[in-house]
Amino acid sequence: MKIAIVGATGAVGQELLKLLQNSNAELVLFDSKSSITFRGIDLAFFCVESALAKQLIPLALQSGTLCIDSSTAYRSDPNVPLVIPEINGHALQRHQGVIASPNCTTTIMLMPLAPLHRKFQIKRIVAATYQAVSGAGVKGIGELEKQTRSYLEKKELAPEVFPYSCAFNVFPHESTMGPHGYVAEEMKMHEESRKILEDETIGVTATCVRVPVFRVHSIAANVEFASPFEKTEAISLIANAPGVRWNNNPTPLDAALQEDVFCGRVRMDHTQPNTLEIWAVGDQLLKGAALNMFQIAEKLCLK
Amino acid sequence: MKIAIVGATGAVGQELLKLLQNSNAELVLFDSKSSITFRGIDLAFFCVESALAKQLIPLALQSGTLCIDSSTAYRSDPNVPLVIPEINGHALQRHQGVIASPNCTTTIMLMPLAPLHRKFQIKRIVAATYQAVSGAGVKGIGELEKQTRSYLEKKELAPEVFPYSCAFNVFPHESTMGPHGYVAEEMKMHEESRKILEDETIGVTATCVRVPVFRVHSIAANVEFASPFEKTEAISLIANAPGVRWNNNPTPLDAALQEDVFCGRVRMDHTQPNTLEIWAVGDQLLKGAALNMFQIAEKLCLK
Repeated sequence: MKIAIVGATGAVGQELLKLLQNSNAELVLFDSKSSITFRGIDLAFFCVESALAKQLIPLALQSGTLCIDSSTAYRSDPNVPLVIPEINGHALQRHQGVIASPNCTTTIMLMPLAPLHRKFQIKRIVAATYQAVSGAGVKGIGELEKQTRSYLEKKELAPEVFPYSCAFNVFPHESTMGPHGYVAEEMKMHEESRKILEDETIGVTATCVRVPVFRVHSIAANVEFASPFEKTEAISLIANAPGVRWNNNPTPLDAALQEDVFCGRVRMDHTQPNTLEIWAVGDQLLKGAALNMFQIAEKLCLK
Repeated sequence: MKIAIVGATGAVGQELLKLLQNSNAELVLFDSKSSITFRGIDLAFFCVESALAKQLIPLALQSGTLCIDSSTAYRSDPNVPLVIPEINGHALQRHQGVIASPNCTTTIMLMPLAPLHRKFQIKRIVAATYQAVSGAGVKGIGELEKQTRSYLEKKELAPEVFPYSCAFNVFPHESTMGPHGYVAEEMKMHEESRKILEDETIGVTATCVRVPVFRVHSIAANVEFASPFEKTEAISLIANAPGVRWNNNPTPLDAALQEDVFCGRVRMDHTQPNTLEIWAVGDQLLKGAALNMFQIAEKLCLK
């Protein structure tokens, strides 16, 4: 089997490379500037910007290459499954050559929530995120380190990767602002949650914020359900969810480099019935991106 | 006039000292270990832990000293006004010698929300906070700096002030965990919002989180109102609120050392009617503490 990583020098590409190192497949690595031919390639992972994915994936499909894409390019396409294997792995069956891997924040939030949705049905989520700079790739990680050093030396360093200084600061997610004031990242959490959970009645309102953390996203979610439940029942479903690790107070440093999504701080909302407060933390580069893509490939190749 | 600062060497005490430097009053400074006499002192600011405030304030009252307290000691006492001058300055009239200054996060959140409450009535707030280390005083600020330097030098440095590492990490607010899983800081936002807005029907459910920021708290609040309104109307009320500065995307670095609370990112919640998403940012040591105490004193002494 011949597998390509497109965007192999990026932060997600590098993680995929590590995950694939023990496979028997022959690996072909492209950076985003390589001239790429897909002839003879069975499976390609796309870890590049949406615009480039949209250019390259049709070429890959012509060569009969199976495509797993981390960008937004195909996520809302009704013919493309948007898959978190532990949650909606069954959707892989109807793929037509392309499978989309979801937005990292959405994946990390849904990992503990999916089993609760199946049992009590999510009506509405109010989410606030604490997102790592790795979401902007290797450059984002470098900027946080450089800016922090400068700040401690009392030198000003203008931001280059982000529109705001990231050292000792928090700021709104830098994705495009939409007409109603939500940024793209916030609307992805709404749209992708609906598609993955296969329920168009769910509403997600989010505030997406970058924090000075290297590679782990955290999400505070207030989740209203249709049915009543006990807190112990909710905790037991979360603790037994595949790929989720229960921990009272997980932090980004706990979850860094870990495959599991950590979940804790579960409380019954004291202001409203059938509503839960939860805190989910996950490595953005692993379950938020590379690991999820790798697991999609595993499911397809085992099939 | 003779004014004492109790806890003058702390982070809040130091800010009060700066604010009082141009007054004509004679200043008397105590640290938390001083042996203190209140004889002849007209007004005392208490910037010490709750337990010490509870010991000292009764002594100050015996000497006829007017007491402004930043701790939780008296905040829930029905005989003690809990005051943000721009919001409920009228409550000062019924003081009996002690006035409490509210929890910093609550103050920063309510500054833009109070005029909206008066017009549309708040029903429920879902809040997630991004709180600076200065909430734990000078020691918290020092720990963030030291831990960050160590991390960048790839040295481990065990946390001393906080229960978790604060450099490049976020973690649950370190206040005492209550029986239902909310920490004390979270329940303060509920209880103090009700007392300050004089409305026991309001519900606040919060997730309080420390972030690696030195002195400014940020809050993402999803606020449901009883009455319908237009977004432009809400923005105009916020922009005209005293002590509030309108800014599309304010960050902690914008609000540091500023007296105003900054508010932006206002959106109509697309999942529910009569509901607003807002983002409030304020200097925790100024409007969150010292400045609010100073403004209480100004109101009382002008009276």
